[in-house]
Formats: sequence, structure tokens, C-alpha cells
Amino acid sequence: MVIYVVTTGGTIEKVYSEKTGEVTNLDNKIDRYLKLLRLPDSDVKIVPLMNIDSLKMTDSDRAAIVESVKKLLPEKAPILITHGTDTMVETGLYLQRALRKLEVPIVMTGAMAPLGFEGSDALQNLTESLIALRIIAPGIYVVSHNQVFPISNVRKDKTLGRFVRIT
Amino acid sequence: MVIYVVTTGGTIEKVYSEKTGEVTNLDNKIDRYLKLLRLPDSDVKIVPLMNIDSLKMTDSDRAAIVESVKKLLPEKAPILITHGTDTMVETGLYLQRALRKLEVPIVMTGAMAPLGFEGSDALQNLTESLIALRIIAPGIYVVSHNQVFPISNVRKDKTLGRFVRIT
Amino acid sequence: MVIYVVTTGGTIEKVYSEKTGEVTNLDNKIDRYLKLLRLPDSDVKIVPLMNIDSLKMTDSDRAAIVESVKKLLPEKAPILITHGTDTMVETGLYLQRALRKLEVPIVMTGAMAPLGFEGSDALQNLTESLIALRIIAPGIYVVSHNQVFPISNVRKDKTLGRFVRIT
Amino acid sequence: MVIYVVTTGGTIEKVYSEKTGEVTNLDNKIDRYLKLLRLPDSDVKIVPLMNIDSLKMTDSDRAAIVESVKKLLPEKAPILITHGTDTMVETGLYLQRALRKLEVPIVMTGAMAPLGFEGSDALQNLTESLIALRIIAPGIYVVSHNQVFPISNVRKDKTLGRFVRIT
Repeated sequence: MVIYVVTTGGTIEKVYSEKTGEVTNLDNKIDRYLKLLRLPDSDVKIVPLMNIDSLKMTDSDRAAIVESVKKLLPEKAPILITHGTDTMVETGLYLQRALRKLEVPIVMTGAMAPLGFEGSDALQNLTESLIALRIIAPGIYVVSHNQVFPISNVRKDKTLGRFVRIT
Repeated sequence: MVIYVVTTGGTIEKVYSEKTGEVTNLDNKIDRYLKLLRLPDSDVKIVPLMNIDSLKMTDSDRAAIVESVKKLLPEKAPILITHGTDTMVETGLYLQRALRKLEVPIVMTGAMAPLGFEGSDALQNLTESLIALRIIAPGIYVVSHNQVFPISNVRKDKTLGRFVRIT
Repeated sequence: MVIYVVTTGGTIEKVYSEKTGEVTNLDNKIDRYLKLLRLPDSDVKIVPLMNIDSLKMTDSDRAAIVESVKKLLPEKAPILITHGTDTMVETGLYLQRALRKLEVPIVMTGAMAPLGFEGSDALQNLTESLIALRIIAPGIYVVSHNQVFPISNVRKDKTLGRFVRIT
Repeated sequence: MVIYVVTTGGTIEKVYSEKTGEVTNLDNKIDRYLKLLRLPDSDVKIVPLMNIDSLKMTDSDRAAIVESVKKLLPEKAPILITHGTDTMVETGLYLQRALRKLEVPIVMTGAMAPLGFEGSDALQNLTESLIALRIIAPGIYVVSHNQVFPISNVRKDKTLGRFVRIT
């Protein structure tokens, strides 16, 4: 089955720059890491939309994400959106307001540490998201750290460094 | 929430012996690899039951797995069984005959290459299984390579080196 | 044999902070990575002296390195100094002026990317330095990227992102 | 500078076969792992000679290694020979008898666990050997686990799982 992965940047896709010593959104790397997974029954199509820190994401960027998702929805394939964790829920709620009567699940995920960094949660979150997309009902979710949160019931806890359930 | 992990051996848990040059079920290693995952909301309890190649698994071993699972079922916590892939479906069907009216999901997983070996699918399968357990309906499943198979609809394809759906 | 490892920080020992998204010298990590190497005949003693970016290193810091090395020299054991690459040569030349008639080799090394980051050269440089210390003549050297440079014949090429020989 | 790497098999280059569950010398993998190292000043040329368990190595195989080395010697470039550890010393002594007045160092190395297996010493040994080749005097050596042994002063200790010095 087809799975779309819309990439928008965030920590999950940051790289270490040897020139500056900084960790920034320079190049796409999701595709490189998806190759580490065995996905024999999944035709993963990556849609690189933007590559920015989610703290810098504007409503115009969020509108672009909505447009991108709307174009994909007629395919009736599940959609994964990779996104910075800081404003992931904000974008998710924005999507929820813009999209009605979803026929597929949309999962948002990201990471506390970039793909390929020691102790990173990034590949775990990608792995979890891809299988959650095959099981869960239509709707918008955050998937991370072995948890699945409906978008209306989640916020990031910056102190704990993870998502928590709210009611 | 509590998640039980009943380990029975199989390739997923094999280790390379520097003395013999063979890959065998010598020591438990699932616990070491689960530490690489972030599971803040999951209280994973490992139950090391046996550590054998599933081609050597007898009906007496399968009865021991059933007994172990039956003891855990009153806890109403989901159960992951790690198992060799060669007879995983056989054991799963054996469990299905022995267990009625499940109130929790039971997921079976394993690997084509041991945990920690280059290119291994083992950590992917563990990660997928742990999140599938939190989403899927009660029943017995095989989870592997981004797929979830009800136990009545799966067999191992030795040529492809993976599980496939049957009807 | 005893090998001393005096750690001063630099990129090699930087960690990614999930709180700030920055890569900084927060904790020591050389010891954790040395455990990945098999060193049956080497008694490695780590001396954590400071943990700073070498661009911030002052002459007072360099004097502290000299003092630390002078205290170790009577042991007649080779010494590895881990150090940021930007001012490694400056510190090496400072050591050369301060230390006369060396009876052991002193190797300086560092990295372009921190230990444990994807594609890092850090463990390679540590591995190379530890064996170079067992072979080379007394003197002060930079060891990195499969090269051994006497301290008087090396500079960092920032564009190439590595050390090069000068005459 | 040019460095030749003559590969003959051994544990260092073994792969795990998902079909058989065995660890055997099926494909070359040294080249893949050398790409993980930064070798800006080294032109490494791999010469894949054979790919066998060193316990199965015959004198005819050893003669082939001698022939291969003899062809390379006029290049006056250092030579690394990767080899199973069980008969590495035997082959090294065979080379010593066949080759006179060496003008370059010849280093033999191997591993107790294959490249890419958890806890493997293989990449460490390759890294050490490549830098040792740039420093040591002409002669034949075994390099492993942060030690450099002249071929006349080394044997494998099967109980310890490593090479030890003999006099």
C-alpha cells in the first residue's frame, strides 16, 4: 500500500554542520533512514515540503501543509507528517480545522534528537508512525515514544521532553 | 500501562559466539535492546521463558508458552511473545486453539537477523510490536516489517524471507 | 601498559542538548566510547581536566594543560590529549615550548563531529591515537584521519575540514 | 599515499546468512566498512584475493598470498592483509620465509567478531592497522586490539580470544 511522508523539517531531520558546529535543517535525511527499515508491503512516497525549525513556522507555512495534504487526500493513502515537536500540536490542530471527514489517518511525528545522533528517538518514532498508520482509524494523531495521541488530547511537555495526554 | 514480553528465543535473540563462530541462543538480549527505546508510558515486564531455535520447539514447549500466557491474562495487559520465525505461526495457531475470549491483544514477533547485527530487522519489529499492542483489538497477531497479520491469515515465505498474508 | 588520556573538551566530546537544540561541552563522554574498544594490554587512565570549546581556550587554560602533563611525565607513560581542533596546534606548540627532552610520545587528537554522531570521525581518531602512542618516538604529534603530524608540521585547514602538513 | 589491502576472508569479513542462519564468507565487505573512515591522504586499493575461513587455508592458498604480495612489493606501498585469526600467524611466518629484505611494512589483521556485528573489534583493528602501516618499520606484523606484534613474537590465545606476545 502507498504511504505518503510529508517532511517539514524539525529536529528529526536536523544535521550537524562541521563548518559551524550547529545543528540545523540543512538537508533532507528522512529518506536515508527509511532505507534502514524493511517495508516490503509499503510503497513510501516522500514529499519534501519544507525544512524548517517548527518554532519558525508561520501560518503561511501551515497553509502550505494543508494544501499539500489536501492534494494527497484523494489518493486515499495514509499520510505521515514529520514536523518539529515544539509546534507540532499547533499545526495538527490547524490541520484538524481545515480538513473535514477524513477517510485516512494522518500521523504527525518528530524527535527530541536528530536521526543518527546517539540515543536518538527519531528512528523509533518513524517506525512507530508507519505501523500506526496501517492500524488506526481515520483522524489526526501524534505518535511518539510508544504512544498514540489524538490531536485534541495532546500537548508537548518541555520539561519532560515528550508529549503527554490532556483531556 | 504494563506490557508483558514473553521471550522464547529464535533468531531475534541469537548471539555470535567468538569461541565457535556460530550464532546461537545463548543469552537473553531483548532487555538490552529495549533500553534503546523511549517508553515513558509503558511498564515493560520481561518474562524469559525459554531460549531456543523455533525449529526445535516441541508441543511441550508450546504448552509451556500457553501456561505462561494464561498466568498473565488476568492482568489484562497486552502481551508480546518473541519467537523464532520458522514456527511462529504454528505456535500462534496453537495459542489460538488454547485461548478463548481474549480481552487483550497478543502479538508475536521475531527477526530474520539477530538484534545488533548489521541490517537487522529485529529492533524495527520490536518497536512496531510494542506500539501495535497499544492500538489493535484483542486477538493473536504476527507483527513484522510494517505489517500486522491476524494469526489465521499469515504464513512465513522462506524464499522471500518474510511473512505474507494468506486467506 | 599505562596510557593517560587528558581530556580538555572540543567537538569530540560535545553532546546534543535536547533542551536547547545546541551541541555543547556539557558532560564527559570519552570514557563511554573507549569502552567500545578492546584494549586488553592497555591500562587507560582518563584525566578529565576541562571541557571547553577550544576557541575559548586561554593561555591560563594552556598553562593548566602543561601542569597536568608535567605531573604525568614522571610515570613515563604515553599521553593522549583530546582537544578542540581549532586551536589544537596552538596548544601543541605551547606544550612544545614548555616541555623539553620528552621521553614519551604525546598525541593530540579531536574530531570534526562529536562521538556518537552519524558519520563522526571521533572514534576513528581515538583508535588511531591510542595505537600511534605505542609506536611513535617521543615528541608531540597531532593524529587524525589516518595521519600522524609532528606538531611543528601541521595546521588545520578549515575549508577542507582537516589537518594538513606544512613545512 | 597508496595502501594495498589484500583480503583473504576470515571472521572479519563473514556475513550472517538469513537463509541458513550461519555466519560465513559469502561476500566481500571490507570496502563497505572502509568507507566509514576518513582517509583523505590515503589511496586505499583493495585486492580481493580469496574469501575463506583461515582454518581451511592450504599451503596452496598461502602460496597465492605470497604471489599477490610479491606482485605488489615493487610499488613500495605498505600492505594490509586481512585474514582469519586462527592461522594468521602461520601465514605470516610463511610470508616471512618467502619474502626477504622488505622495504615496506606488511600488517596482518582480522577480527574475533565480523564487521558490523554488535561489539565487534573488526573496525577497530582495520583502523589501527591502517595507521600502524604509516608509522612502523618494514617487516611483517600482526596488529589487533591496540597492539603491534612482530610476526616472530605472536601467537593466538584461543582461550583469551586474542593475540599475545611470545618470546
